[in-house]
Amino acid sequence: MATINDNYLKLKAGYLFPEIARRVNTFTQLNPNAPIIKLGIGDVTEPLPEACRIAMIQAVEEMGNHSSFRGYGPEQGYTWLREKVAAQDFQLRGCDIDASEIFVSDGSKCDTGNILDIFGKNNTVAVTNPVYPVYVDTNVMAGNTGVGNDDGSYEGLVYIPISTENNFTPAIPAQKVDLIYLCFPNNPTGAVATKENLQVWVDYARANESIIFFDAAYEAFITNPTIPHSIYEIPGAKNCAIEFRSFSKNAGFTGTRCALTIVPKALKVKAADDSYVELWKLWNRRQSTKFNGVSYIVQRGAEAVYSEAGKEQIKLLVNFYLENARIIREKLTTAGLQVYGGINAPYVWVKTPHGLSSWDFFDELLQNVNVVGTPGSGFGSAGEGYFRISAFNSRRNVEEAMKRITNKFKV
Amino acid sequence: MATINDNYLKLKAGYLFPEIARRVNTFTQLNPNAPIIKLGIGDVTEPLPEACRIAMIQAVEEMGNHSSFRGYGPEQGYTWLREKVAAQDFQLRGCDIDASEIFVSDGSKCDTGNILDIFGKNNTVAVTNPVYPVYVDTNVMAGNTGVGNDDGSYEGLVYIPISTENNFTPAIPAQKVDLIYLCFPNNPTGAVATKENLQVWVDYARANESIIFFDAAYEAFITNPTIPHSIYEIPGAKNCAIEFRSFSKNAGFTGTRCALTIVPKALKVKAADDSYVELWKLWNRRQSTKFNGVSYIVQRGAEAVYSEAGKEQIKLLVNFYLENARIIREKLTTAGLQVYGGINAPYVWVKTPHGLSSWDFFDELLQNVNVVGTPGSGFGSAGEGYFRISAFNSRRNVEEAMKRITNKFKV
Repeated sequence: MATINDNYLKLKAGYLFPEIARRVNTFTQLNPNAPIIKLGIGDVTEPLPEACRIAMIQAVEEMGNHSSFRGYGPEQGYTWLREKVAAQDFQLRGCDIDASEIFVSDGSKCDTGNILDIFGKNNTVAVTNPVYPVYVDTNVMAGNTGVGNDDGSYEGLVYIPISTENNFTPAIPAQKVDLIYLCFPNNPTGAVATKENLQVWVDYARANESIIFFDAAYEAFITNPTIPHSIYEIPGAKNCAIEFRSFSKNAGFTGTRCALTIVPKALKVKAADDSYVELWKLWNRRQSTKFNGVSYIVQRGAEAVYSEAGKEQIKLLVNFYLENARIIREKLTTAGLQVYGGINAPYVWVKTPHGLSSWDFFDELLQNVNVVGTPGSGFGSAGEGYFRISAFNSRRNVEEAMKRITNKFKV
Repeated sequence: MATINDNYLKLKAGYLFPEIARRVNTFTQLNPNAPIIKLGIGDVTEPLPEACRIAMIQAVEEMGNHSSFRGYGPEQGYTWLREKVAAQDFQLRGCDIDASEIFVSDGSKCDTGNILDIFGKNNTVAVTNPVYPVYVDTNVMAGNTGVGNDDGSYEGLVYIPISTENNFTPAIPAQKVDLIYLCFPNNPTGAVATKENLQVWVDYARANESIIFFDAAYEAFITNPTIPHSIYEIPGAKNCAIEFRSFSKNAGFTGTRCALTIVPKALKVKAADDSYVELWKLWNRRQSTKFNGVSYIVQRGAEAVYSEAGKEQIKLLVNFYLENARIIREKLTTAGLQVYGGINAPYVWVKTPHGLSSWDFFDELLQNVNVVGTPGSGFGSAGEGYFRISAFNSRRNVEEAMKRITNKFKV
């Protein structure tokens, strides 16, 4: 008799975004003409950069000729892409990362989940609160947690609050932790981490032989030159951190699918036999066995991100969304709402007015002004009373949404 | 202190194909001008069908306009693709499979590995011998096996021999098994399973509440009309089988990446609390949380496989490789070698001449006639003394390789 992975039954309700989609669908079925504006899920709306499109069309055409046809590529990604990433994303910033340490994948969501495959089952796992739900749910699935509580938290996970009270700066917890998820610029709060704060974590991880999972999916949105784009800008990070990067938000690849995971060869973790094992070897084996590389066509599109034309187009794209974020901040602030983030990140974190709960504010916005955002409590108990507004939409929609919200919720 | 998944340390040497690549690289460094012909890894060589290329170029162009830009798609795949798969691959063959039961993914290798995520750790796992190594290695990684033996087998796995002695027909093992991997048309032997044989397995699985993982990656190569293309052609299979399909071998998508996993909603497995759980719900939750869907561009390419033009082009492609297989069979048979498969599959399974071991024959072919194949022993101990030759190459290369082999190894 086959048995299931019972850890799945511990998972609470649906994943946050499907639940939002469900509520929006129910509303639109009853109100088919409602002019809904979605500032909820962090999905881009602007066209794919021309440089990427040109490269992908060329790649499709290459697939039509014997001499340039590409079958299976390297599971780790093509060298021409990995070398550009290493040079431009890392070495240019003084990070000593080699092309061989970069793994090209089809998404950061996949990688941040799959990375647990190579770790043991007895690690104590730390996440921030609020947190990107995928970190939590994948640990539940892997059996790294106990049961779920009513507030959406799980027994066995260590939650590190990031809130207005600590200026969104995660502090070292009292309990020892082995695997630590940090996402900066932060989803959902839009906060950033300083070099000093990340150094505290790197020092902690090295002293305790812990591993940091650093999610840098939003690094392109950093405007403050003192804020690090990569954890490897922090001395010692190569000995304790894995970094995740994505083309989703900078180059608009949410529907095109390409991401990166960096596993430095200096990263070593103790095995049961007390020997130290290179995590690179384990991840390389995992990817070689359970993955077959990203589409050649898509990798050519990602490569174009590093061309002169691509860099220019991506800068315009990022600035476009950052201007949206600025407008959201300004309009909501003028209306008397308290806002955070949105300066080095495409997310604005809003204190709900009139003491509304996150989901009540979600329903109010949906039903009264037909604007969709994301309830802060969906990211964890410390997100209760907050609301995430995404800057990913057209200028017209952002302006219209702000007009509707501020008219209704002036405080 | 973080710990690793120590099961990875049980894995023997490299995955088969990297080891072949290593030997070929060593040889070509010493013999840079050797005219090597690769009939090893099952990688296609013919251009991508025009219908798929046209559809993908159009999809890239759509990404350049606001109105047709696509961000995150459904994690399960777009409905327009799933509906075509359900209608043409299944319903046309009398299989009652609904579009909602089809999950679009970026590869069968990923899916056959990832499927273990939703199963418990105490399942007894059966594989054939010889076997596609990914099934074995992913079970080692998941902790479903004991240590590895010198012949490449692992303690705790149940190996079901398929060989000339049983006409490559897997028999029910004496020991009870919970998860059963069956791949037909078979990789590596090129053998097929009859309806009668699959019915025996479906009946066994239903009687024992076991689950069959049916890998149908090579179904397009079936030429015998009595051989089933899908396990769902067998009555009762919807209650006990998950099927994997791929666009890699029929439409040449090895470098483009698209595959399918079918999880019928009727599939239920007992949880620890004795309730029955729909596997569809678990896989849907797994994919929603740890996957973000296949590139929109690639899904449009896959959709074109089901167009009239696409179907015609794919038929030509499959027939081209089948003719290669026929030539391989004929030439080797004429030379006095014993061959199997290659009629309903792109693989020819050859008895090594002169009692050579699989790897010795590999080295002989590489060094003396510069032809690369795959040693049968790389697929398991029952593959020792056999050799896999793939029909994926140009006509000229196949003919030249056969000339070289038969000149050298006439028995």
